[in-house]
Amino acid sequence: MRPSGRAPDEMRVIDIQTGFTKHAEGSCLVSFGDTRVLVTATVEERVPPWLRGKGQGWVTAEYSMLPRATHTRGQREAAKGKQSGRTQEIQRLIGRSLRAVTNMEKLGERQIVLDCDVIQADGGTRTAAISGAWVALRLAVNKLMADGKIAVDPIESKVGAISCGIYQGTPVLDLDYIEDSGADADANFVLLEGGKIAEVQATAEGATYDEEGLLRLLRLARIGCDRIFAAQDEAVK
Amino acid sequence: MRPSGRAPDEMRVIDIQTGFTKHAEGSCLVSFGDTRVLVTATVEERVPPWLRGKGQGWVTAEYSMLPRATHTRGQREAAKGKQSGRTQEIQRLIGRSLRAVTNMEKLGERQIVLDCDVIQADGGTRTAAISGAWVALRLAVNKLMADGKIAVDPIESKVGAISCGIYQGTPVLDLDYIEDSGADADANFVLLEGGKIAEVQATAEGATYDEEGLLRLLRLARIGCDRIFAAQDEAVK
Amino acid sequence: MRPSGRAPDEMRVIDIQTGFTKHAEGSCLVSFGDTRVLVTATVEERVPPWLRGKGQGWVTAEYSMLPRATHTRGQREAAKGKQSGRTQEIQRLIGRSLRAVTNMEKLGERQIVLDCDVIQADGGTRTAAISGAWVALRLAVNKLMADGKIAVDPIESKVGAISCGIYQGTPVLDLDYIEDSGADADANFVLLEGGKIAEVQATAEGATYDEEGLLRLLRLARIGCDRIFAAQDEAVK
Amino acid sequence: MRPSGRAPDEMRVIDIQTGFTKHAEGSCLVSFGDTRVLVTATVEERVPPWLRGKGQGWVTAEYSMLPRATHTRGQREAAKGKQSGRTQEIQRLIGRSLRAVTNMEKLGERQIVLDCDVIQADGGTRTAAISGAWVALRLAVNKLMADGKIAVDPIESKVGAISCGIYQGTPVLDLDYIEDSGADADANFVLLEGGKIAEVQATAEGATYDEEGLLRLLRLARIGCDRIFAAQDEAVK
Amino acid sequence: MRPSGRAPDEMRVIDIQTGFTKHAEGSCLVSFGDTRVLVTATVEERVPPWLRGKGQGWVTAEYSMLPRATHTRGQREAAKGKQSGRTQEIQRLIGRSLRAVTNMEKLGERQIVLDCDVIQADGGTRTAAISGAWVALRLAVNKLMADGKIAVDPIESKVGAISCGIYQGTPVLDLDYIEDSGADADANFVLLEGGKIAEVQATAEGATYDEEGLLRLLRLARIGCDRIFAAQDEAVK
Amino acid sequence: MRPSGRAPDEMRVIDIQTGFTKHAEGSCLVSFGDTRVLVTATVEERVPPWLRGKGQGWVTAEYSMLPRATHTRGQREAAKGKQSGRTQEIQRLIGRSLRAVTNMEKLGERQIVLDCDVIQADGGTRTAAISGAWVALRLAVNKLMADGKIAVDPIESKVGAISCGIYQGTPVLDLDYIEDSGADADANFVLLEGGKIAEVQATAEGATYDEEGLLRLLRLARIGCDRIFAAQDEAVK
Repeated sequence: MRPSGRAPDEMRVIDIQTGFTKHAEGSCLVSFGDTRVLVTATVEERVPPWLRGKGQGWVTAEYSMLPRATHTRGQREAAKGKQSGRTQEIQRLIGRSLRAVTNMEKLGERQIVLDCDVIQADGGTRTAAISGAWVALRLAVNKLMADGKIAVDPIESKVGAISCGIYQGTPVLDLDYIEDSGADADANFVLLEGGKIAEVQATAEGATYDEEGLLRLLRLARIGCDRIFAAQDEAVK
Repeated sequence: MRPSGRAPDEMRVIDIQTGFTKHAEGSCLVSFGDTRVLVTATVEERVPPWLRGKGQGWVTAEYSMLPRATHTRGQREAAKGKQSGRTQEIQRLIGRSLRAVTNMEKLGERQIVLDCDVIQADGGTRTAAISGAWVALRLAVNKLMADGKIAVDPIESKVGAISCGIYQGTPVLDLDYIEDSGADADANFVLLEGGKIAEVQATAEGATYDEEGLLRLLRLARIGCDRIFAAQDEAVK
Repeated sequence: MRPSGRAPDEMRVIDIQTGFTKHAEGSCLVSFGDTRVLVTATVEERVPPWLRGKGQGWVTAEYSMLPRATHTRGQREAAKGKQSGRTQEIQRLIGRSLRAVTNMEKLGERQIVLDCDVIQADGGTRTAAISGAWVALRLAVNKLMADGKIAVDPIESKVGAISCGIYQGTPVLDLDYIEDSGADADANFVLLEGGKIAEVQATAEGATYDEEGLLRLLRLARIGCDRIFAAQDEAVK
Repeated sequence: MRPSGRAPDEMRVIDIQTGFTKHAEGSCLVSFGDTRVLVTATVEERVPPWLRGKGQGWVTAEYSMLPRATHTRGQREAAKGKQSGRTQEIQRLIGRSLRAVTNMEKLGERQIVLDCDVIQADGGTRTAAISGAWVALRLAVNKLMADGKIAVDPIESKVGAISCGIYQGTPVLDLDYIEDSGADADANFVLLEGGKIAEVQATAEGATYDEEGLLRLLRLARIGCDRIFAAQDEAVK
Repeated sequence: MRPSGRAPDEMRVIDIQTGFTKHAEGSCLVSFGDTRVLVTATVEERVPPWLRGKGQGWVTAEYSMLPRATHTRGQREAAKGKQSGRTQEIQRLIGRSLRAVTNMEKLGERQIVLDCDVIQADGGTRTAAISGAWVALRLAVNKLMADGKIAVDPIESKVGAISCGIYQGTPVLDLDYIEDSGADADANFVLLEGGKIAEVQATAEGATYDEEGLLRLLRLARIGCDRIFAAQDEAVK
Repeated sequence: MRPSGRAPDEMRVIDIQTGFTKHAEGSCLVSFGDTRVLVTATVEERVPPWLRGKGQGWVTAEYSMLPRATHTRGQREAAKGKQSGRTQEIQRLIGRSLRAVTNMEKLGERQIVLDCDVIQADGGTRTAAISGAWVALRLAVNKLMADGKIAVDPIESKVGAISCGIYQGTPVLDLDYIEDSGADADANFVLLEGGKIAEVQATAEGATYDEEGLLRLLRLARIGCDRIFAAQDEAVK
């Protein structure tokens, strides 16, 4: 039995509130249960130095946790003077995931920065961030197309992400904080429409799993991402 | 005429949504028009090193602007590796303002950290932060009292803050971003109930003002803070 | 009775020794009693990036305290690897104060950097720094004019600064360290010739004050700044 | 055809030279073809603060690339003043991988630090580092047991790691630099004896892959890790 | 002919003004011609962690150049966020030089920090700093002895330092900035009473020198240090 | 008697293994007994900003100690976020030493970076680094000449470095770690062919020495450097 009473393949309630801030070209507040992440997409009419003059764009991401998004307060990274390894690992993952569905030639020589700030954390902040970042990116690109700055849609698929894990011997979908802390193994899947895999990060803490276990988690992730794709569709409609 | 059409002594709509995050001992999302700041109060059962064993508590604050809270994206301070002078100046002001209404002996040997994160900026973020921080502090102290950890209420007054300025020759209350950018002079006032002054920071950019001008801004600030005190009362009721 | 035996409206002895270092375009060692600050003005024939090509100049300031300027040794900021919030707050104030009296178009596309290094601290280091910085700026601008690089004097007024406070119930002028540590409230005023206000920073530590109290401090500050203006005149004669 | 002429399931030559440095409790220079990593294991008779007094040990890792390990010189991280996101991601992975095979109670209240310094890079530095780190750890633990400091062997399995990828449509084992740069997708697998999975990090750059593709890579990784386990056995014999 | 008109073995005028700041336990403003360094000695009743409980003291130094001590303004190290290699090299040299004449057991378990801040630079700042630091140390130790905290004098010799170099083929003593910039080779000597050598740092820029050349510089340094010892005696009398 | 049983003027075994890494334009692993340093020379077709367009090149060096090169593990400088004063002092010395034998006009507008990474430390790491750096530089320049990029050899002499010291009253050559820790005085000499002096850094820890002592060390250094020059010749043959 899961602490939340959910069935093993049951997601938390997904909520995506678009237009959460007025300045950003795209934005949403995405919730997976009590996990809430504010994502903004900023369009910049320039690219990183190593891409200049190559006729293609770039999509990148930054991630941060507000100090009291968690049970106990964490020190502010700006005050510490550096981003943790965890933060950097996550923002690199978010960036790669969104680049996996963006055609950089069609985007043109501009950069879209996705800022993912965790307002409240209850497990799965990186996967909620990726799922919400797609919505913010979609809205920003819609705006670029409406403004006539992009002719052909550079977004080639939806992308969603979800965590799965083995909790007390049972593979479960969409771990919350309690499950995450006690899971024998957990994996984050970044999937595209049609179930194609963009990224898998599977870690066995203490335990290990076999090929069959990995596949069962992957299948759960497919169920979850179908739900996420539906919520994304609904949000940007 | 003000760009927003407001009268010179008219505040923007104040909205204070308490309990915005579930982990913090006190929290609110405070809005002054389009300026929105998330404030959380964290109670820590320890004090800074220099206060240990002295039988008194401490109240401190941290402030940050989300990268896309503003018209154009600002670089993330955690990525730059340091907090700007502006950030430090503001968080020192917030801390002093809240300490001005807290009796540290009654608080006992514990620290309350007020994290003020600007979700959206449209002028007056520091004053909104102070005004909201009082609400988060009040809620956190209420919880300490309900839990029997504090016997006598250490909060001695409400505290509110508001900016005033001289915009196109006219003293106006509660400047928004457009007014703030074009003001001849602006001042932030931190006031207590009964109109007592905790802090004044008045700056004349380009122009200067005289004693009479300063007094007219102070009187506007009194009007504004009375509105803030009412909104605070409503929020914590 | 003040610890120093001074009358409430009595300043400490002001001494401004110009030409204290030979390399700087302008320099002075300014003393307010035992508070001594070395100020140098450096003329740079370039402006910050955001001002390039706009036909105007810039005046900025940096502030630092030598490690043993104080009763006990403070850690060197260069060794700590960052400037404190206090340092940044003060150097921003000094820069704003000097910009308030400088016409940037007349200065032309060049920058003047005012370095204020506190040799010995006994209260009022930031106000002494502002008062001395005007002298260093004046000397550097005189040199630019003598060299034919500037045609019309860009300095539009003298500017001085002084701290006032309420010490044991009495408003007093020019607080020394002992008074500063024990004051109920203190305020720094940056004033121009004719008594116009460039900046007010008033803080009530523990106590608060009312409109009348603030005005009494402002009037003391006027007395003090008149003395400062006379000393500045004497120094640059 | 692979650029190196290897068969799809053919590893590069593995060489593990133990005792490469005389001070460390365990050390080796591990080579996978032209990729060479120096690993040292340091035993410290203390644990991180959050583990003190819990009767268990810790295993952690640090990773670095010498500036000219690569085709063009990279800036030294010590000179830049911070470790890159990539470095932190890799050293976190190495630490988790070795912890997956270490019983922390049996290790006792001490820490083993695995320093992995890349002398020469030709693809697969992180997987070579993990594979070599096991050898250094094994040697250090052997020494602790020989010295009578540990009674029961805390190492529960060998652990190896290898990268696989899809190169020009074909799944291949143990990518070198040329393959790595041109691969459609690549994955790093950390496996235990018996083929159990400790960690999977699979990324599709540009392309994506399906469940079948992921499985084919996993099966290649099993072949590779069996070779690694044999080399580890040989090295510590 | 030297640019200053001095004879090859002629020092610049040495001036040592003691008691330059009132807070430090010892202080002086030392001038070698136009080179001026403010040195303060701070007594701290604690030692660095690695010396605790060993019954001996420590002497250490910090060095900094005010931004406009030089012909053109240098960036402030506190603003850059780190001390340069040059700064660290110099402060390590100053510390070693003073430790060479201090008996750490007699000093007792306390630390003396020598802060050397260059007010104006005209060549030879590090040697002026060492020579002045001895005076500040002497005064601080005198105070400790007068206060009855130290029974037996821990200072075993005077120590002085001077630069010599080969300028246009001629060995010269006490290089000023112009000579220093154009010298073929220069060396800093730290000498004790009786001509004993504590430290030699000789560098040939472009040229090189032979044994005889090195000895000629050493003999000049002896002449210079005798002058310095006399000035130190005069200063602390 | 020396702990190693060597005669006072006896060097440790020198071994220089060239071509240790395949990417660098020049490289070697240099050993002086158990001290081993990996040196790579990187040719960059650009110069530092302050040399651009002047028709001359630059030679610079970086130095680092692997964390477990020493008896006990040292913290990684990249993790600490800054290079120590010792590291900076050493890399400045290495750079100066190699520049002393390089004609910058003949090198042409390019930079050669010498990375010296200490694999194992047993005294004399900086002098081994300089001696090995000459070999790596020689190989890189040979390659530039073979590629027709440089017409006239810019290397004007060999350069070697060795430490000498007074150990238990006897001047000895090439100190190992045990001798270095217990020496009364030690000196590093950087010499050119023909015995010319490029640099002397002599420090008396605790003791001091006189002119005669310094000369005796210099003569030992000559013996050592002749051995080093022979080993360099052998290595690059």
